[in-house]
Amino acid sequence: MIFITRRERFNAAHRLFRPDYSDEKNLKVFGKCSNPNWHGHNYTLFVTIKGEVDTETGFLVNLKDLSDLINSMVIRKLDHCNINLEVDFMEGKLASTENIAIGIWKELAIPISNLGAQLHCIQVHETENNFAEYFG
Amino acid sequence: MIFITRRERFNAAHRLFRPDYSDEKNLKVFGKCSNPNWHGHNYTLFVTIKGEVDTETGFLVNLKDLSDLINSMVIRKLDHCNINLEVDFMEGKLASTENIAIGIWKELAIPISNLGAQLHCIQVHETENNFAEYFG
Amino acid sequence: MIFITRRERFNAAHRLFRPDYSDEKNLKVFGKCSNPNWHGHNYTLFVTIKGEVDTETGFLVNLKDLSDLINSMVIRKLDHCNINLEVDFMEGKLASTENIAIGIWKELAIPISNLGAQLHCIQVHETENNFAEYFG
Amino acid sequence: MIFITRRERFNAAHRLFRPDYSDEKNLKVFGKCSNPNWHGHNYTLFVTIKGEVDTETGFLVNLKDLSDLINSMVIRKLDHCNINLEVDFMEGKLASTENIAIGIWKELAIPISNLGAQLHCIQVHETENNFAEYFG
Amino acid sequence: MIFITRRERFNAAHRLFRPDYSDEKNLKVFGKCSNPNWHGHNYTLFVTIKGEVDTETGFLVNLKDLSDLINSMVIRKLDHCNINLEVDFMEGKLASTENIAIGIWKELAIPISNLGAQLHCIQVHETENNFAEYFG
Amino acid sequence: MIFITRRERFNAAHRLFRPDYSDEKNLKVFGKCSNPNWHGHNYTLFVTIKGEVDTETGFLVNLKDLSDLINSMVIRKLDHCNINLEVDFMEGKLASTENIAIGIWKELAIPISNLGAQLHCIQVHETENNFAEYFG
Repeated sequence: MIFITRRERFNAAHRLFRPDYSDEKNLKVFGKCSNPNWHGHNYTLFVTIKGEVDTETGFLVNLKDLSDLINSMVIRKLDHCNINLEVDFMEGKLASTENIAIGIWKELAIPISNLGAQLHCIQVHETENNFAEYFG
Repeated sequence: MIFITRRERFNAAHRLFRPDYSDEKNLKVFGKCSNPNWHGHNYTLFVTIKGEVDTETGFLVNLKDLSDLINSMVIRKLDHCNINLEVDFMEGKLASTENIAIGIWKELAIPISNLGAQLHCIQVHETENNFAEYFG
Repeated sequence: MIFITRRERFNAAHRLFRPDYSDEKNLKVFGKCSNPNWHGHNYTLFVTIKGEVDTETGFLVNLKDLSDLINSMVIRKLDHCNINLEVDFMEGKLASTENIAIGIWKELAIPISNLGAQLHCIQVHETENNFAEYFG
Repeated sequence: MIFITRRERFNAAHRLFRPDYSDEKNLKVFGKCSNPNWHGHNYTLFVTIKGEVDTETGFLVNLKDLSDLINSMVIRKLDHCNINLEVDFMEGKLASTENIAIGIWKELAIPISNLGAQLHCIQVHETENNFAEYFG
Repeated sequence: MIFITRRERFNAAHRLFRPDYSDEKNLKVFGKCSNPNWHGHNYTLFVTIKGEVDTETGFLVNLKDLSDLINSMVIRKLDHCNINLEVDFMEGKLASTENIAIGIWKELAIPISNLGAQLHCIQVHETENNFAEYFG
Repeated sequence: MIFITRRERFNAAHRLFRPDYSDEKNLKVFGKCSNPNWHGHNYTLFVTIKGEVDTETGFLVNLKDLSDLINSMVIRKLDHCNINLEVDFMEGKLASTENIAIGIWKELAIPISNLGAQLHCIQVHETENNFAEYFG
């Protein structure tokens, strides 16, 4: 079994808050991340897949296919967007790094199995100091 | 003469658009950066100052003082904010990397001269692929 | 289950040596790392924790709380210090990257469980070419 | 049990192609990586080993010994070479990142066990966006 | 005056040698870089341009236009190619980092002036330890 | 004229203090950097030289010669050492990043001119957030 990781990037706005909280409570729980005027990040996404090497090509899967799939399924929806307002798979969810990683997993798991591999890990970096990993 | 550079970071939302343009024209000129729902970046700021080494301390200036000044004058205003809506020194300006660099220069030039050094360069990185530099 | 990683940094002096070895033997076993006048590093620490996402906040734990805990329990003791002479949890131990990782694990495992998560991995980078990982 | 990782680098030429394919088919399957005139990369190799800390030295193994071993067994053969034409352990194999990782594993597993540790993972980065991992 | 830098990347094979030298002399002068079977690098290119900010757009030039120009004029010719054999603007020149930087300058200087800016610097990184800069 | 930069690294201990200051005054002026038990850093050094490209080799100077020179003249003296106690060219000087850059310049300027180039800039990074540059 071999593991392959592809890095992709998206730049997005978001806000951490609950509509059922007052502004004061949102500020207390989420700090400056609750700013009603939004803020944003250069997110970095690492998608790790696993499976057997195809002896015909030497590849687990062609990385161009993997990159195209990640771009069409998730980057297109996230890049230069507002995660709270515009991303279908984040609707009704808090836009935390944890939930973004889980949301991306759900978008990619089946399409990647259709490529002939298995999704192993979604890693989302929000800043150089913070990242979340989800293994399904 | 010696040059010292301090790196600071801020995460912010912004949008590139002109209110006197139609949505179509904004999209044509500014592309996906004109998204009315905002997007954002992890900006990296490099502030370079120059001057003589103080023979008493071996410093051009104490980097803690420089960092405190940058934080109080510009990072505090930009971090986890919306550059178009909330940053006084960007009011009425297009929130391009070029203009952010020029805006930060204007905030820092006099305070840095009060520290006993001279501002040399403001470098603002919007992504790993793009940055602007302003030398006054 | 979700995994979250927080990066922190500390700059410290250390020396690899055994007091029961002669200088020659220390030099033979530990090379230039045994220099009696010390040397030092910019260490990078990655703390990975795991657990369930809190549906109220979207967080595993609030990263500000995690960062505060790491700083108060380990960074405060290590940063700008001499690991051999000043760090209580390294007393009587060789100041290798391996032992630093194990020492930090022991300091953080219980406090992190008090935050409502489980410590998963301590990763300590000594240089850009070397790092140690400990999983308990 | 502790894990230690050593980073090494090699700059090499390669080409992805099958001699039993026509040029057209090679181009279709392998894209621009099939260029008959070769292209190349700055490969980054991370070798992770695991085992018990030696209480005498505080080391899993001396990293200088690990680095020397990696250099003599694999870097010497790969660096500034043509992976398709000159590397004995890649003979008859497609020079994909997957196969390079597997090939390096086979070269290092026994020598590392002779150092008193166990090979855990070979990670090979071809670009900043792509890497393969092999765990045996 | 503002300066803007765009990063682009290309992966290429090359060899340092003179056809009028013997193999021994090439090896003596160029070391392992003279390997007749080629080797390669992940080159990183930084293109810095300068000029006035357009008050209509807030841009020196639109970075998408700059990136498109760099890709069509130089990256397309270099990426996944053999610099010695396939790159028109390197014909008859030693494929050193210095000459690659000068060659790229000559390709880009006029097209960038047609964009309404002035080429300021071409920086080419061959490895993480080496880079060349050319200012015309 | 072409510019070439070589990166080298050294890991060292140091302390910022004046023997004619009391411990309290050292702490007030230099903060935690004045710790009498030392601390340390992974320093990164960038040496930039300039001159004409040699049409015979395509090089400004052979980077192997430049690297050997930097290692024999400065890295050998600094790496795994105590900058305050063991480095001849820092004797009697405050071990600030500014003074380290100036000290390295003085060691390298003449030897580099003997290589047939001119020293242009010494850049010393103390952490990922701080660096000094000296142009002579």
